[in-house]
Amino acid sequence: MSAGAGTIWGVGLGPGDPDLMSVRADRLVRGARHVAFFRKAGRPGRARTIVAGLLSPEARDIAMEYPVTTEIPLDDPRYSECLSAFYADVSARLRDLARAGEDVIVLCEGDPFFYGSFMHLYTRLKDDVPVRVVPAITGMSAAWTATGVPVTWGDDVLTVLLGTMPEAELARRMGDSDAIVVMKVGRNLGKVRRALDTAGKLDRAWLVECASMAEERALPLTEAGESAAPYFSIVIVHGQGRRP
Amino acid sequence: MSAGAGTIWGVGLGPGDPDLMSVRADRLVRGARHVAFFRKAGRPGRARTIVAGLLSPEARDIAMEYPVTTEIPLDDPRYSECLSAFYADVSARLRDLARAGEDVIVLCEGDPFFYGSFMHLYTRLKDDVPVRVVPAITGMSAAWTATGVPVTWGDDVLTVLLGTMPEAELARRMGDSDAIVVMKVGRNLGKVRRALDTAGKLDRAWLVECASMAEERALPLTEAGESAAPYFSIVIVHGQGRRP
Repeated sequence: MSAGAGTIWGVGLGPGDPDLMSVRADRLVRGARHVAFFRKAGRPGRARTIVAGLLSPEARDIAMEYPVTTEIPLDDPRYSECLSAFYADVSARLRDLARAGEDVIVLCEGDPFFYGSFMHLYTRLKDDVPVRVVPAITGMSAAWTATGVPVTWGDDVLTVLLGTMPEAELARRMGDSDAIVVMKVGRNLGKVRRALDTAGKLDRAWLVECASMAEERALPLTEAGESAAPYFSIVIVHGQGRRP
Repeated sequence: MSAGAGTIWGVGLGPGDPDLMSVRADRLVRGARHVAFFRKAGRPGRARTIVAGLLSPEARDIAMEYPVTTEIPLDDPRYSECLSAFYADVSARLRDLARAGEDVIVLCEGDPFFYGSFMHLYTRLKDDVPVRVVPAITGMSAAWTATGVPVTWGDDVLTVLLGTMPEAELARRMGDSDAIVVMKVGRNLGKVRRALDTAGKLDRAWLVECASMAEERALPLTEAGESAAPYFSIVIVHGQGRRP
């Protein structure tokens, strides 16, 4: 660790509504001098958009632009190499700032340690400079709240699945759980729907788009169209456990 | 719905540190006139304790005291009858207040729709008076943050289990998941440890007590003693998924 170093803060912003940020996250973001965030090239960046109304005029942006998103398949070794070099590069940039005594607020959508991009910086920085993490409300919490139905009762098992998984595995795990959350639905909506049908749970599933945001939409999955859902869509099946 | 009725707010307080409440929850609690919360008879109530420093001097307490906790086994029909009558009774009390035009803030530990006691009031009130729910940071988010290790990477499956489940089922599900969270550990710690051992994951498990609170303690489960853990302990096994 560097003496006199600044701290890299991985600050969870929650599901999207700034009002659902934690008091700690709100305070850190308002006081930030350096604000780092991931984004696709040419886009404003979703995390940065969430805090647009909170930042001080003096705050300096550090935009970390993904070199690839969907151009290279996930299982191509070049995808991993390319992203690895990118994470090393932006980590070096943040490390230098911390060693110069500057605190850096890294804006994280959702909860930083739950499928978050920040984790790739965290593992590269935590042994070199002080790194702290602020947990946050997950997108799935906002999603099940949007359905207006509690998600887990009594001894209900909750399984969190990814729409990117193979259909047969999705179906098997859906059949073996009480409550289900499927993340990363987006272009996998058709596959997720078929897997739920195989598991006999399609009629109980909800689709939630843009939970907690102005565009929020929650509806039974059977009433949703066949087209792809927004990337941040989440599918929910509620548990049916013990309720006195 | 009653015209001119007040709103019953199920406000998630998060894992315990008031600084991890959402900005919305903080504002609602500070402005509350009626504050309802569950507690064991003779105890101050954990939710009420979290907000002790935030409430207005004018706020009036509505303590909802459980008629039973562990005196009657969960599977005894009297347990369910007793709790059902209790939930009906306190729901009636809150319904009357809302119909008289009063807003009521119901303090909820963790996230209200995730294994929360508020759900039992919600289902009894939602068709009669306005009810709104504020999601929150879950205890499990605070727990995996406390371990200093990200919980899910890439396509990791996360399974949330309850320490109250049968040992064989715990072991089977632990063996079939990448990342694992076990809630309600407490007196079930020995069983949870044996199930993890059967699943071959004991050496990767962490025990987190009182996540986010002053007494927070996170340590490898194999280094924890054999005695029961505090009720709000959580066991975490981290996923090992794709990480460029």
